[in-house]
Amino acid sequence: MKARVHVMLKDGVLDPQGEAVRHALGSLGFEGVNGVRQGKVIELDLADGTTEDQIAAMCEKLLANTVIESYRIETL
Amino acid sequence: MKARVHVMLKDGVLDPQGEAVRHALGSLGFEGVNGVRQGKVIELDLADGTTEDQIAAMCEKLLANTVIESYRIETL
Repeated sequence: MKARVHVMLKDGVLDPQGEAVRHALGSLGFEGVNGVRQGKVIELDLADGTTEDQIAAMCEKLLANTVIESYRIETL
Repeated sequence: MKARVHVMLKDGVLDPQGEAVRHALGSLGFEGVNGVRQGKVIELDLADGTTEDQIAAMCEKLLANTVIESYRIETL
């Protein structure tokens, strides 16, 4: 089975990487870009029968820093 | 309007970051993780009326390195 985990910085946490992208888009002439947030997406190829609880444990222990990041699990 | 851009390394391009995550998950005792690919997700807050073509241009010019990365645009 496959699963996709989206990890984003929580609202209110400063995102300098996203801010740099926003600035660069403006410099390239793209107008109307009001905000950019950058996160990670991790595609996992897992053994069949892996539960969502196990994937959540992977997120809590390794994939996301839950102090500043939130995660969302999507099974495919 | 909001849009989300997913940027992943193309198939066949070595992903050392994903490989490191796979190895780390194994070390933490998670079994059955056969493969991990890591990519980026970029959330854009755009002016209303921005077309998908304009977002694709942002991807081609800045957000993705289309030699080794593929991108997918999702408007929300």
